[in-house]
Order: sequence, then structure tokens, then C-alpha cells
Amino acid sequence: MSQDRVFATYHIETPYDLEYAAKVMAGEQSTGTFIAVPGETEELKDKFSAKVVSIEELEVVSTPTLPGSKPPKGSNGSISYHRGKVVLSFPLHNFGPSIPNLLATVAGNLYELREFSGLRLMDLELPHAFMEKYPGPKFGIEGTRKLANVYNRPFIGTIVKPSIGLTPDELRVVVRDLALAGIDFIKDDELNANPPYAPLKNRVKAVMEEIERVADKTGKKVMYAFNITDDIDQLERNHETVVKAGGTCVMVGINSVGLAGVAHLRKYSEVPIHGHRNQWGAMTRCPQLGMEFTAYQKMCRLAGVDHLHCNALDSKFYESNESVIKSVKDCITPMFDGYTVMPVLSSGQWAGTAPGSYSAMGTIDVMHLAGGGIIGHPGGSEAGVKSMIQGWEAAVSGVSLHEYAKTHFELAQAIEKFGK
Amino acid sequence: MSQDRVFATYHIETPYDLEYAAKVMAGEQSTGTFIAVPGETEELKDKFSAKVVSIEELEVVSTPTLPGSKPPKGSNGSISYHRGKVVLSFPLHNFGPSIPNLLATVAGNLYELREFSGLRLMDLELPHAFMEKYPGPKFGIEGTRKLANVYNRPFIGTIVKPSIGLTPDELRVVVRDLALAGIDFIKDDELNANPPYAPLKNRVKAVMEEIERVADKTGKKVMYAFNITDDIDQLERNHETVVKAGGTCVMVGINSVGLAGVAHLRKYSEVPIHGHRNQWGAMTRCPQLGMEFTAYQKMCRLAGVDHLHCNALDSKFYESNESVIKSVKDCITPMFDGYTVMPVLSSGQWAGTAPGSYSAMGTIDVMHLAGGGIIGHPGGSEAGVKSMIQGWEAAVSGVSLHEYAKTHFELAQAIEKFGK
Repeated sequence: MSQDRVFATYHIETPYDLEYAAKVMAGEQSTGTFIAVPGETEELKDKFSAKVVSIEELEVVSTPTLPGSKPPKGSNGSISYHRGKVVLSFPLHNFGPSIPNLLATVAGNLYELREFSGLRLMDLELPHAFMEKYPGPKFGIEGTRKLANVYNRPFIGTIVKPSIGLTPDELRVVVRDLALAGIDFIKDDELNANPPYAPLKNRVKAVMEEIERVADKTGKKVMYAFNITDDIDQLERNHETVVKAGGTCVMVGINSVGLAGVAHLRKYSEVPIHGHRNQWGAMTRCPQLGMEFTAYQKMCRLAGVDHLHCNALDSKFYESNESVIKSVKDCITPMFDGYTVMPVLSSGQWAGTAPGSYSAMGTIDVMHLAGGGIIGHPGGSEAGVKSMIQGWEAAVSGVSLHEYAKTHFELAQAIEKFGK
Repeated sequence: MSQDRVFATYHIETPYDLEYAAKVMAGEQSTGTFIAVPGETEELKDKFSAKVVSIEELEVVSTPTLPGSKPPKGSNGSISYHRGKVVLSFPLHNFGPSIPNLLATVAGNLYELREFSGLRLMDLELPHAFMEKYPGPKFGIEGTRKLANVYNRPFIGTIVKPSIGLTPDELRVVVRDLALAGIDFIKDDELNANPPYAPLKNRVKAVMEEIERVADKTGKKVMYAFNITDDIDQLERNHETVVKAGGTCVMVGINSVGLAGVAHLRKYSEVPIHGHRNQWGAMTRCPQLGMEFTAYQKMCRLAGVDHLHCNALDSKFYESNESVIKSVKDCITPMFDGYTVMPVLSSGQWAGTAPGSYSAMGTIDVMHLAGGGIIGHPGGSEAGVKSMIQGWEAAVSGVSLHEYAKTHFELAQAIEKFGK
């Protein structure tokens, strides 16, 4: 790949022919308008213009997906909307290795062009200059495993419930029970960060005291992802609060603080960054608009996220299993010289979702979060955690869940309760 | 309005009845799952739950807008998708006056719920606690006018073209000509920030030398919005570069640095923040997803943006004139005790778009940016600027453009060239 250009892949839908439409995109996002302006010489155009690398025709539809597209002049009767895959390349020297300015180029005004009734950024290929500027996940998969001392299987984790409203003392009890249950990982809900009714510093104190106390007893220190999402400067103070108390992970709403906010946090962070992607649905759920996860996760990794939410199989969300599997595979595909990120599976999970996840995703380098599947286990949280581990043991060893359950009681209980 | 709750208005589309769907939203974004979890008492729910304030039925459609919605169990045959306007209220103490955490609550995971085939945040009402935390635009309309010494009419401005590729010396010539033409405002293109081929500090030096030189001669100092969009810490250095050189405005890609990044910039900024909204199309162009500008502009103002792009009438973009007019009216509607922001009109503008803009928007507190309409004017840029001012004079005095052109030569020339 060229080391001085950024390659961006789009799916477009347009009432124009694809070749013309691709040229409009390239023009809008580089040397500008089609109207000749003084100073816009051929030499300048050649040096600074985006180039159309390839165009692949996809289907033709008769109804535009998005409003406001304008058919070519002289069109009459029924209009066809051409869908296609377009790859553009942009000279890096137009914007330099800067995530915010990359966004303006590959995902900026072009969404608003009336030549399109659909436009979605699918993928990105970035030159090495980005790697030099943004060193990526500080911990990644290996660093996270080392810190939590969890090897050869997924992290088994959960989210504190109720998501909102627990006092620090109530939270204490929840965390103590989970830590004693042998869980690897606990996280705050994305709705719960630094609320007036239970400020982060009080929550951190309560949680870390419990975690350390259990660790003294059992030798296992749970990784807790504190939701430190907040204004840019408060983010730094929140991070400090967590680290000073011995915390080993911070969580951040990527879209709440922005990729620039994440990259800023990455500069001083001393623990893994657990990346929550709430609001992502707004950017991706319309298939002809916004961004595909393939492109998004690359920018998240570049910004320095160590763990990244991907939904899960059979979740409560709209996302198809096929899309979830693709997201996880995107995350475990190396970027530059690694930039490893741990995919996080959550929503509707229990021991029985392990085999399907493993066979579809082909990795144990995931965080597998279950709520009811752990705390709702008939034998309690400890049995819940055991059942999850057993589910993965069955998956990896290729034994059927039911077969494995014959000799593993907690798994059998989980199947009995959740396996309907 | 209650001062301890946030009110959020949504348009939804759902295969469920609206009442049930509204309860799902409220549950997901506050006390969580419908499955009872230990600790989730009635008292806790009452104190922390989001409440459904009102539901208004809109149309019923037979095809879901977004993929992945799941009809109620037992549905068979054709399914109806109900559209409705839903107002929810959230207790402020769930998240506190924090823009990033507000986002997670009012615009977070709910976009992904499979109970919906459409979900769009339309409007927000925020309690005064936000005002105490975020003081809003530092300059607003009045401060911007004072700084540029432009009163009783819109700011007449332009965008440097070609958008990319000019060396600082070439830029010098462009800026000199525009400044001598008597223009009020010049801005960088959103694609051009701090690129390797022409680093911001070199551009700032060239531009400000020209601007000061012209100001010495004519007494008029052009306001130039330097695009300082960049990583969080670089943003601060870029701002300093501009201010030290005597610059009077910085521009930032709001969605490139995030609202949190803008609010951070607001803390130390010494000049107005010109807010560009590139990428906004991805968040708003699907009418059943994302966010309405009404909600967005409130958060931009809260974060401290002094000028905000709104497209313009008859632009090259997909947005309808009706939507543009609504956006401008949103911006000039007071928020809290003011938080005034100057709407920026650009794309496809010339003198002749003034009367329509004025009659539809009812304000002269706008920045009216024209490219070709100024530099492409047959009499040159100075005549172009004059023609724009004349267009607004005609508009405000209620005289028709053609009538006014009889005694105003530059306007007549503009009509001759652009008025087809």
C-alpha cells in the first residue's frame, strides 16, 4: 500500500452513473468545486486531488434510501438509483496524520451531497504515519491478560445492575459478592459515570476497598472498568482517581468524549481503556448512511482503545448475528504491527452462548459479559461464573454443551434455567 | 420546567404500541432491564427512572425504515409500524450536568433497541444546572459584531478557494485581495487545518500579516476563522498560534473534536469559535434515525460555539430550504439567558439569495458566505462584496432586488451574471 495516501472504501447510492458520482465525492473532499476557481491549476489538482481507485457496480434500486438526492438534469420518468462500491485515495499531505482531520476528509460534508441517496464509509487503509502519531492500545489483549492474570480463556465479566441508583455502600455489596464469586471483570453501566447521587470518587473508594479485600483473601484481583466518561479535563482527574485507588481499568463512552478525547486520554492513561460505543447505532443503523464498524473500529484502535464493545450473538439489540461476528473478526484482525483490541460481548449472554460464539468467531480473546447469566444462576454468582467458564471449555474442546454438562454441574444448572 | 430533570423529545417508529415502546426507552436509559434484578427496589426505580411525559400518535407505516426491529411475539401477517412523538424526562441526578454523560443518556444505546425501526432525538430541554457548568458562547452575536466592527447587517464572508493546496504565499494573495475588497469574514475550508504542505503556523503568519497590513491602510480588520481542528492538546497550541498572531477567530470541526473537545476549547479560548458541522449529515440525513438539528444546536451552544453552520437556501446539499430555515430559527431562538450563536449560511450563495433568506429567516444576525458570488463577480471581489451588502439592503428595506439594482450597479451586475 502507498504510504503517502489514505484509502477509503464507500458504499454509495446515486441517481447518477457511478463514475460521475465517484468523481463528485473525490472533488468535494479534496480540491473542491467543479467550478474552476482562480489558482486551481492542473498542477495543484494533480498534487492535492483525491483519486478514484476503483468502482464496483452493485444492485440498482428504484427508490432512493435517503431524502434530498437530486436526479441529473433532463431525467424524466422513472429514475434508477445505482449502488456501488467505490474506493478513493486521498493524499496524506492534505491533512496529515490527525484523526480529527482524517474524519473531516473521509467522513465529512460528503454525506450531505445531493448527488447521493446513500453514502456509507465502509473501510479505511491508513499509512504508517498514523502509527507514528498514534501508538494505539497501550495494553491490548496481552496487557489486559497480564494485568488481570487471566489466560487461555475469555474474560468472564458482568455489568453492575441496577445500572443506576446504587449508593456506594450498596455497590460495595454487589462488588464483594461478584469478586468472591471469582469473576474476572466488572464494569459500570454506560449510564453511570460521575453522578451527583454517587460521585465517582466515592464509588471508586467503595469498589476498590472491596476488590482489594477479596484479593487479599483469594489472591485474585478483579479488573473493574470505572466509567470515567466526562468533560476533557474532568476525564483526566477521573482517571487519576481510579489509578490512585489501585484501579486497573477505565471505561469511556467513545462517542461521548469523541475519538479525539480517547486519543487524549491514551496519552496519560496508566490502565487499559474499556471502550463503550453507545450512540454508535445512530451512526450505523441505516445501511446506506454513516459508517461500517470495520472503519470505526480501526479509528477506535488508533485512538488507543484496549477493549471494544461489539454486542453479542442473540442480544437484545437490532444487530444481526452475522454483523456481530464480522465486528469481532474485524477487531481480531491485526492493524499495523498489532494494535490488538479485546472485543467485548454483552447482552443476553450466558454459558450456553459460548459454543456458538467460539465456533463463529474463532477466538478466546474476548470479554464475555453476562448479567442474568451470572447473578441469576440458580447456584448464585460463583456458580454462574463457573458455568460460563465451563461453557467455553466445552466450546474449545469441541464437546457438546450437553455432553460437557453431564460432568459439570453448574453448566447443567445454567442449561436448565437459561437454555430454553 | 422542572429544574431537576432533562426533557428529551423523540420521533419513534415501532412494531409495538407506542406506550409499550416508550416504556422500553425509559427503562433502557435509566433503571435498566425489565427483568427484575436484586437491589432494584420500587423506591430506587421511582427515584432514578426516566418517565414517559407524553405520547403523540403520528402516522402508521407498513414498511420498517431501519433493519433489525423485531415484531411482538405472536405477530403474524402484516405488521404495522407506529410512528409517534414521545417525550421522556430523566432525573438530572442520574448523570449530572455533563455533556458527554447527557449524550449517553438521551442518545446512547437506545438507537440499537430492536423494539424500534426508527428513533430520532428531536429536542432537549435542559435544567439551569447545565448553564452553571457550561457558560455557552463566549462572544455570541454581540461579541462577534464588536470584534469585527460589523453592525446592522449580516457579515459578508467567503471561504478560501481552492480549499486545499495553496502555499502560504499563494494564500497571502487570496487574502490580500479579499481584505482589500472590504469583506468582513474569511474562513478556511473544513478540509484544510494543519496540513504538512502548509502548516497552520505558516498560514497564520501569512494571513495575519496581510490582514494587518490592509487594516493599517483601510481601518478594517477582517475576521479570519483559522481551522484549528486537531488533537485535543494540539488544539490548544493551534489556538495560541492564532491569538498570538492577532487572529480574531478560530474554526473547529465540532464532530471531529467532539462536543467535549469544543467545551474544552471554550475554557481557554480568547476569540469566537466558528463551529463547522461536517459529518453532521451522517447523524441526521436518515429522517428516522440520529438527531434533529434542534437538539444538536442546543448542545453546540452549550459547548460554547459562537457561530454555527446551517447550510443555506438553494445550496448544493441535500437539505431542503424548509429545513435550513428551521435550523436558522433554532439558532436565533434564545436558550437559557441567551447563548446567542450566529448562524452561518453558505453554499450556492450570492447577492440574490439575500431577500429570500431574510424574508424566510427574519434576521440579519447571520454570516452570509459566498464563493463564486463574490470572487466570481464580473466587477471583482470588491464589487462582489458590495453586491452582497446591496442584496441585504434591498431585502431589509422591502424593495425588490430588481428595483434596488436600478440604482446599485454591483447588484445589477450580480443579477446579470448569477440571476438565472
